[in-house]
Amino acid sequence: MADFSSGVTHSDIAKMTPAEKYGLCEKLRKALIEGVSHTGGHLASNLGTVELTVELLDVFDPSEDKIVWDVGHQSYVYKMLTGRADRFPTLRKKGGISGFPYPPESDCDSFIGGHSGTSISAAYGLFKAMRFEGKTGRVVAVIGDGSLGNGEAYEGLNNVGADGETGLIVILNDNGMSISRNVGRMASYLTKIRNRKSYFDFKSGLARFLNHLPLIGKPVLRFLTKIKFAFKYTIYRNSTMFEDLGFTYLGPVNGHSVEELKEILTRAEKIEGPVIVHIKTVKGKGYDKAESDPSLYHGVGSFSVENGADGKQSKCFTSAFSEALLDIAEKDDKICAVTAAMESGTGLSKFHERFPERFFDVGIAEEHAVTFSAGLAHGGMKPVLCLYSTFLQRSLDQLIHDCAILKENVTLAVDRAGLVGGDGVTHQGVFDTVFLKAVPGVKVWSPASLSEVAPALKAAASENGLTVVRYAKGGAPDRDRSDYKPLGLSRILERGGKTLLVTYGRETAEVEKAADALLEKGVVCDILKYDVIIPLVRETEELSRYDRVFFFEEAKREGGVGESFIAAYPEVKNFKHIGVEGFPTHGEVAELLADAGLDAASIVKTVTENEA
Amino acid sequence: MADFSSGVTHSDIAKMTPAEKYGLCEKLRKALIEGVSHTGGHLASNLGTVELTVELLDVFDPSEDKIVWDVGHQSYVYKMLTGRADRFPTLRKKGGISGFPYPPESDCDSFIGGHSGTSISAAYGLFKAMRFEGKTGRVVAVIGDGSLGNGEAYEGLNNVGADGETGLIVILNDNGMSISRNVGRMASYLTKIRNRKSYFDFKSGLARFLNHLPLIGKPVLRFLTKIKFAFKYTIYRNSTMFEDLGFTYLGPVNGHSVEELKEILTRAEKIEGPVIVHIKTVKGKGYDKAESDPSLYHGVGSFSVENGADGKQSKCFTSAFSEALLDIAEKDDKICAVTAAMESGTGLSKFHERFPERFFDVGIAEEHAVTFSAGLAHGGMKPVLCLYSTFLQRSLDQLIHDCAILKENVTLAVDRAGLVGGDGVTHQGVFDTVFLKAVPGVKVWSPASLSEVAPALKAAASENGLTVVRYAKGGAPDRDRSDYKPLGLSRILERGGKTLLVTYGRETAEVEKAADALLEKGVVCDILKYDVIIPLVRETEELSRYDRVFFFEEAKREGGVGESFIAAYPEVKNFKHIGVEGFPTHGEVAELLADAGLDAASIVKTVTENEA
Repeated sequence: MADFSSGVTHSDIAKMTPAEKYGLCEKLRKALIEGVSHTGGHLASNLGTVELTVELLDVFDPSEDKIVWDVGHQSYVYKMLTGRADRFPTLRKKGGISGFPYPPESDCDSFIGGHSGTSISAAYGLFKAMRFEGKTGRVVAVIGDGSLGNGEAYEGLNNVGADGETGLIVILNDNGMSISRNVGRMASYLTKIRNRKSYFDFKSGLARFLNHLPLIGKPVLRFLTKIKFAFKYTIYRNSTMFEDLGFTYLGPVNGHSVEELKEILTRAEKIEGPVIVHIKTVKGKGYDKAESDPSLYHGVGSFSVENGADGKQSKCFTSAFSEALLDIAEKDDKICAVTAAMESGTGLSKFHERFPERFFDVGIAEEHAVTFSAGLAHGGMKPVLCLYSTFLQRSLDQLIHDCAILKENVTLAVDRAGLVGGDGVTHQGVFDTVFLKAVPGVKVWSPASLSEVAPALKAAASENGLTVVRYAKGGAPDRDRSDYKPLGLSRILERGGKTLLVTYGRETAEVEKAADALLEKGVVCDILKYDVIIPLVRETEELSRYDRVFFFEEAKREGGVGESFIAAYPEVKNFKHIGVEGFPTHGEVAELLADAGLDAASIVKTVTENEA
Repeated sequence: MADFSSGVTHSDIAKMTPAEKYGLCEKLRKALIEGVSHTGGHLASNLGTVELTVELLDVFDPSEDKIVWDVGHQSYVYKMLTGRADRFPTLRKKGGISGFPYPPESDCDSFIGGHSGTSISAAYGLFKAMRFEGKTGRVVAVIGDGSLGNGEAYEGLNNVGADGETGLIVILNDNGMSISRNVGRMASYLTKIRNRKSYFDFKSGLARFLNHLPLIGKPVLRFLTKIKFAFKYTIYRNSTMFEDLGFTYLGPVNGHSVEELKEILTRAEKIEGPVIVHIKTVKGKGYDKAESDPSLYHGVGSFSVENGADGKQSKCFTSAFSEALLDIAEKDDKICAVTAAMESGTGLSKFHERFPERFFDVGIAEEHAVTFSAGLAHGGMKPVLCLYSTFLQRSLDQLIHDCAILKENVTLAVDRAGLVGGDGVTHQGVFDTVFLKAVPGVKVWSPASLSEVAPALKAAASENGLTVVRYAKGGAPDRDRSDYKPLGLSRILERGGKTLLVTYGRETAEVEKAADALLEKGVVCDILKYDVIIPLVRETEELSRYDRVFFFEEAKREGGVGESFIAAYPEVKNFKHIGVEGFPTHGEVAELLADAGLDAASIVKTVTENEA
């Protein structure tokens, strides 16, 4: 049996017996559980795709074919089998391998992944480019049932289905879940078809029946076996939405049977026109704790394999928001909560329990979520829409068009704003501070510590028009800021220094720590801290009294809040703006802050080195 | 017969005989053609929805029910019938009525519209809000078959279908077209079901058959008539994708028959759970010229009713781009063109004809369009994706996630960037200059006149990574700029003035005109003009030699390019930044420029009034 640690190629797997493959799968699962228990990461989704990955590499050859993983948090096994097993202990760590497909890491990663619903579109682009080059390989998009509810996935299906070319295969990895239980009608539709007699059950039943028929039974069976699957189509063709969308539908099959997977993938590979292969998998398969609570093990920190993850959430911005929202919802029955498949991640579970009729999980559908919220608001409700910063990127048009023009009373709770750590390049929440400036009239709060979340949410939800409260993943040290002088939307700590440090959000703690350290060195710094960052309003008197002004932001520098600041205070001298450049990689938030020159030590260094 | 010029209410229409309704429709069509021939606007789509609008107001009552028009360029008749007939000659003119639904204009406009695919989401939000208030009205979303291919529409269907509540009706206005002929598999699917025997054909056929059956025929017919439509469901239920998506599907019916529309809408109104009513309409119906060339009359300028529109396109940014693209595509067979249902609008018809295999119309699917282009690029092609600025808002996430992280060689040709005129608040292309700053590594060209388009496109398409060429609707006076000193990504006209005017894009012509006028008054102005606006690079020596610096941009001021400028040149004194504020209304571009203080006259005034 192959030892995958030294890499297992397409031709290795192609030679294996089913028993050998199951042996390999067992080893892979063990390595997955062991590895993720140390590094943290996406466990349940990867446990569900072990057999699928082995069979993809059996039937397809990454040197000729391309495999595109939707979202990509189910690509760990693929990484291990395509030469990255030895680096698996570095998963999501700084300098280590990414937790998502990342082409610079390996030629086997055909495209980047991290956000939902992109795989079919990307696969189709890769497919057309291959054909332009005269290459005949197949392109396979692996998409989960949760992502299939996303609008972009549908746009991709709609385009591919119309063109009807041969060689593009969509594998629907149906585990009945997004991160939480799946919602949306597509999910119920899939449940309906996944629960009916599977193709293989039908086939073996038919064989048994025919075998017992006198005279004609056996010849018919031989004939059917010869033409192999042909008779299948008569049964399933036109029986599903996917056929209407222009795909040949195959399935459902047991996604944990290498035999069934091999048979159906081999068949899919030979069919003319685009194909959807529907496989049923179990999220968390093979690790009982993950199987029984797949949400907990969707994205998990390090844990003990024996005892499992504890699922306890320590105090953080999300929990502070969660409580603050409950509080305002108790007092105002117009408040409702909307989430795009992130009930638990955005801290809405308690709200869901307490106010089920005012809770809406619309699925992985950020565009719809915003317009739906605008409709609720136009009708007199006060929706609070909870999204991660990186996914809010999906909704810019709806923010402008459906919310801002008519100043609808929609409040966004934007979680994971700032550096996110292990998820890396695809998930950094460092762009909202720039693109939200494109939305006329929006007002954006950026609390610096947990105690600032409730006042910010309360203010945001009670103001008219589109408002945003954005906060980081994790927590921030709390600090009594009564020594700051309130200015309205900002506040200033005046110590009589000639140096001014300006900041907002979680970065405030680093700036304060740096200022304390600088004070000890005899460098007196004042601090100007913004509570509301968009619009950035000029609230204090002339800042020309400072010899030098530094702006630190845990967000994109170019186009960032620092630019609004210099536009508002053109009189400042010796201005230096430090923020995030490019796409920060994965790693601990503290490491990424240091890389960007945003941790306290770097701030001290910057201030010390830039004498006026 | 009611004269609609004084308004026709729900109860007026409810009293009309079919003949009276057809009379009204005739009058409405005449008014539409006459009106739009003077004002310009969306003609063909409105001609297709005359009977539908009359019957919507017959069966539903805007004082209790809500009607949401998707995109909304088919709402003219609705506007005329809901008290705005007298203002119809002011359509799309400054101070006049909007060409799209606009709630501040009338309570009958239930939600804003202008972009595609939002109606189901908005309707669902309005619906839930009504139910929270205990109101029992219906909410109707009217969506075209083109918009139904959009991802957000699918997200909306997916959510509504799952919830299954009663009172939300989607009317699918199927005319087989977006602006051009429809693409995508959903379109072919609709063609399939629209071409089969319609429900009414079936019903009358059945009646004929039963009438001739001895003994049982007539009683059965009486029974069926009594239970009315009940037998229908057995026929169509589960026969369509929409049933799978959780909707009761009714149709298809002739959307120009008030009798059929009344029967089916009345029935739809009584059905439990969400309903889709599929109606077949003819774009341009009733005006032979528009019927035979609906694309030409989709959005049309003023024209002679007798002779029709000429369809000739004068030289403009779009035509300059069109030629420039053909030119680079002749020389490089990796260049391909992608559009989201805007082949003609973005100037791609010639490209499509010349290079059909390198042309992709993906339908109204801006998210998919970007990821698909990124896939093409990742596979070695050089896609040029052509979108309107306002619709590019749909793609921010895909620009960041699918293009920018891996620096894919995707070039965007962004048309209608800047003030767009008659389309108004929902379509102004004044935000891309802000939100594109959120995309790491993007490089954005903004040609000032037609002759600058080809060099910009050539440069953009030959650079690595994500590049953008943005240009305005219409044209701009050409000017020989050899008197400017080239700096690289910008150029400067040095006349020895102490005043500097900074600008880019189409606004350059206004600034130059103003500078000439100021020169005549003895005020010498230098001009700094940016060819590349993002990133804004510091290229010239100190600008502190100027007593005052003005930045004029035909785009959002706050967060705009002017902010990047002041961040790059902190030494400038007496800086004044003039740009677009809020959401400019509809009107002539010249009027909107003047409103924003961006026409030459306003520039002269601003410079004269702001002495250093």
